Amino acid sequence: MVRVQAIMGIIRDCDLEKMEDANFMQVMIERTVKLMDLTLLKTVSHKFTPQGLTTVALLSESHIAIDTYPEEKLMLVDVISCGQKDAKIVLDIMEDMLGGITEIIFDKMIEGN
Amino acid sequence: MVRVQAIMGIIRDCDLEKMEDANFMQVMIERTVKLMDLTLLKTVSHKFTPQGLTTVALLSESHIAIDTYPEEKLMLVDVISCGQKDAKIVLDIMEDMLGGITEIIFDKMIEGN
Repeated sequence: MVRVQAIMGIIRDCDLEKMEDANFMQVMIERTVKLMDLTLLKTVSHKFTPQGLTTVALLSESHIAIDTYPEEKLMLVDVISCGQKDAKIVLDIMEDMLGGITEIIFDKMIEGN
Repeated sequence: MVRVQAIMGIIRDCDLEKMEDANFMQVMIERTVKLMDLTLLKTVSHKFTPQGLTTVALLSESHIAIDTYPEEKLMLVDVISCGQKDAKIVLDIMEDMLGGITEIIFDKMIEGN
């Protein structure tokens, strides 16, 4: 039976420079994936003009998506995971690396039929 | 102020052949994006062995992610949108194109500071 954790959070008051740095985001995703015992398949990102960055990591266990809103120093993190560990860890790591404050807006275990 | 709709749904009893078809998913995303008046930046997908497909569309207005679970004939659709139209439309279009039944598991308007 499918068993997937869907968690979404806002991280406020993030470091602006890091939020705009696609390489930093890549490193952050790699660290997160490693600590969560997940498998990274590929990462895709898009840098907006004049600011903003969307980064999505495709995983063997689903995906992590990050949308940044530098104008308000916040980012939205969306994780769907069928990994073994609590995906809340993803938000904890990102909060720590970006110096922000997380507000979980949704955390649900979704089960199949 | 950031104003983003986050909606997630399960579509059950989907057409199995379509769920496994990356080209069909691409067409479905393009149709969805057009009807929602969104702007598609790029699509990335990964086909799992023996089955399963993850497709993520990066939009100017955030993203749409689809994870399929053919073993249970269901897919999980995750939309973050700062577009003008109700993102529930995304699920309606996909439900129609895949012949499934949608269960909304989360639908929230997220506002910034």
